[in-house]
Amino acid sequence: MAAPPEALVERVLAGDPRAIARAISVVEDAGSTDPAGAALVGVLHPHSGRAYVVGVTGVPGGGKSTLVDQLIATVRAAGQRVAVLAVDPTSPFSGGAVLGDRVRMNRHAGDSGVFVRSMATRGHLGGLARTTGDAVLVLDAAGFDVVLIETVGVGQDEVEVAQTADATVVVLVPGTGDDVQAMKAGIMEIADVFVANKADREGIDRLVQSIEAALSLQPAAEGAWTPPVLKTEATTGAGVAQLWDTLGRFRDRSEALRAERRHARSLTRVRALAGELLFARLEQALPAGAFEQAAADVAARRRDPYRAARDLAGQLV
Amino acid sequence: MAAPPEALVERVLAGDPRAIARAISVVEDAGSTDPAGAALVGVLHPHSGRAYVVGVTGVPGGGKSTLVDQLIATVRAAGQRVAVLAVDPTSPFSGGAVLGDRVRMNRHAGDSGVFVRSMATRGHLGGLARTTGDAVLVLDAAGFDVVLIETVGVGQDEVEVAQTADATVVVLVPGTGDDVQAMKAGIMEIADVFVANKADREGIDRLVQSIEAALSLQPAAEGAWTPPVLKTEATTGAGVAQLWDTLGRFRDRSEALRAERRHARSLTRVRALAGELLFARLEQALPAGAFEQAAADVAARRRDPYRAARDLAGQLV
Repeated sequence: MAAPPEALVERVLAGDPRAIARAISVVEDAGSTDPAGAALVGVLHPHSGRAYVVGVTGVPGGGKSTLVDQLIATVRAAGQRVAVLAVDPTSPFSGGAVLGDRVRMNRHAGDSGVFVRSMATRGHLGGLARTTGDAVLVLDAAGFDVVLIETVGVGQDEVEVAQTADATVVVLVPGTGDDVQAMKAGIMEIADVFVANKADREGIDRLVQSIEAALSLQPAAEGAWTPPVLKTEATTGAGVAQLWDTLGRFRDRSEALRAERRHARSLTRVRALAGELLFARLEQALPAGAFEQAAADVAARRRDPYRAARDLAGQLV
Repeated sequence: MAAPPEALVERVLAGDPRAIARAISVVEDAGSTDPAGAALVGVLHPHSGRAYVVGVTGVPGGGKSTLVDQLIATVRAAGQRVAVLAVDPTSPFSGGAVLGDRVRMNRHAGDSGVFVRSMATRGHLGGLARTTGDAVLVLDAAGFDVVLIETVGVGQDEVEVAQTADATVVVLVPGTGDDVQAMKAGIMEIADVFVANKADREGIDRLVQSIEAALSLQPAAEGAWTPPVLKTEATTGAGVAQLWDTLGRFRDRSEALRAERRHARSLTRVRALAGELLFARLEQALPAGAFEQAAADVAARRRDPYRAARDLAGQLV
């Protein structure tokens, strides 16, 4: 496997923003079975493992971006370096990711302790979780103390991305039925901290109560962390310092949990990568058009999809 | 491979609701490499391919369930049999799927031309798309003329589920910034028909205009279907008959597109299933605890995840 350019690695480890951006592009463009991405991750990996990785998720329109901006200011005020990954499966014609980037980049322009990057990754299975994981690794190796991963919606995407984080903040807002939707999408269970944002709005107390009611139904182990429910106003910054303190307490309190999650995350990644490698080898082993032919058979009801898959896989092992 | 019980297959093909429910449970519980699910799909597959499969998606709170209920009534009034799959990655403690099922089941109880089923599938990659695809196949083989797939949110889940459908309806409501969120989540491109629901609300015309503006940015091939934007009031049923007419016109107009999508869907399924089969064989070939050990190495930074995956995959091929 070709070694990654030594200069790039050195500059990433030194925290050079342009090198970091380029390294993220390498892992993002690489695909999971591409040697370029694997080689870069391989060299950076021993330098990673120090950053505190915090996921910020919740239903659209909850003010997550504004909250993340406030968190950046709070982390910087505490003298730490912070990177933000905005994971945004943006439509090719909305241009949302690029625009959002530019706005935030401008605000923090000239502060080398802040790095913001949108990932507009979409497509094949596992793509989002893998690229996010690799991008976090680059930022971690680059020496950022805190990496914030902001996601756009609620769904399996967010649950997977949350598995990349040491702590997950779930943001809800009053009066939109968000709490119910969050429960439906299964994101209540991934929260380490709840934020009821837009605390100036009517219905904030009802929202807090409904989260607490939902939490009380969850079985809690003796001495386990109970996710607190915090009120914030992201637009004014009210409550954000308390959120950051709480995340600090969670980090201190949950050393064992964090190690457990990092192990689970490594397991998920190794399993996914091994599966993708095997599939890439199958593709190399099959004659050109073999999958297309099988799909045509399935669409015409000549073979069922399971039989077609067995026939193909059988040509590798 | 053990053949599925002949009685179950016969009763599914005869449209017996209890047998259909059981068959869906079989494919849902089976896992993609379990012979029970594969055998059942294998036997039913030649009997499928006739149903019109329509996905209904959009942001939470958009009134999708009510709209689907109205569509049921419209399809029944036209003398056709209709099945609904409510794909709902429900939290284990919200019980949303079960409750929603019960409410709707009651409404259509005694009508053997209606079948409603929630799928609360979560978990491993590709799980949702695969089980949805298999469940649609069961309903298709059971002779339903129309299968409606209703999803809960906007995200990659929905995009994948939409790939299981012949036509996709994207539901938006005024005044929630839904249109922007849908664009962000990449859901604009999967729509064959847009529904601006809650047409009695303020801002409905602005919503319609913003969708049309977004559509005008999309490159349209000569003679291609342009997704129409329809206004509905799901609670009163206003506009629902027109929606159903439009879906009928789309079906008639788009024979070639439909064949293309069915081929693409078959290709995706065969590729995913082949990958999962290979992975299952790798798991069988490896000594117990091999993945756990690799994950521990990765977490301790002794090996990077790509190297660990290569080492493991190398033991199969």
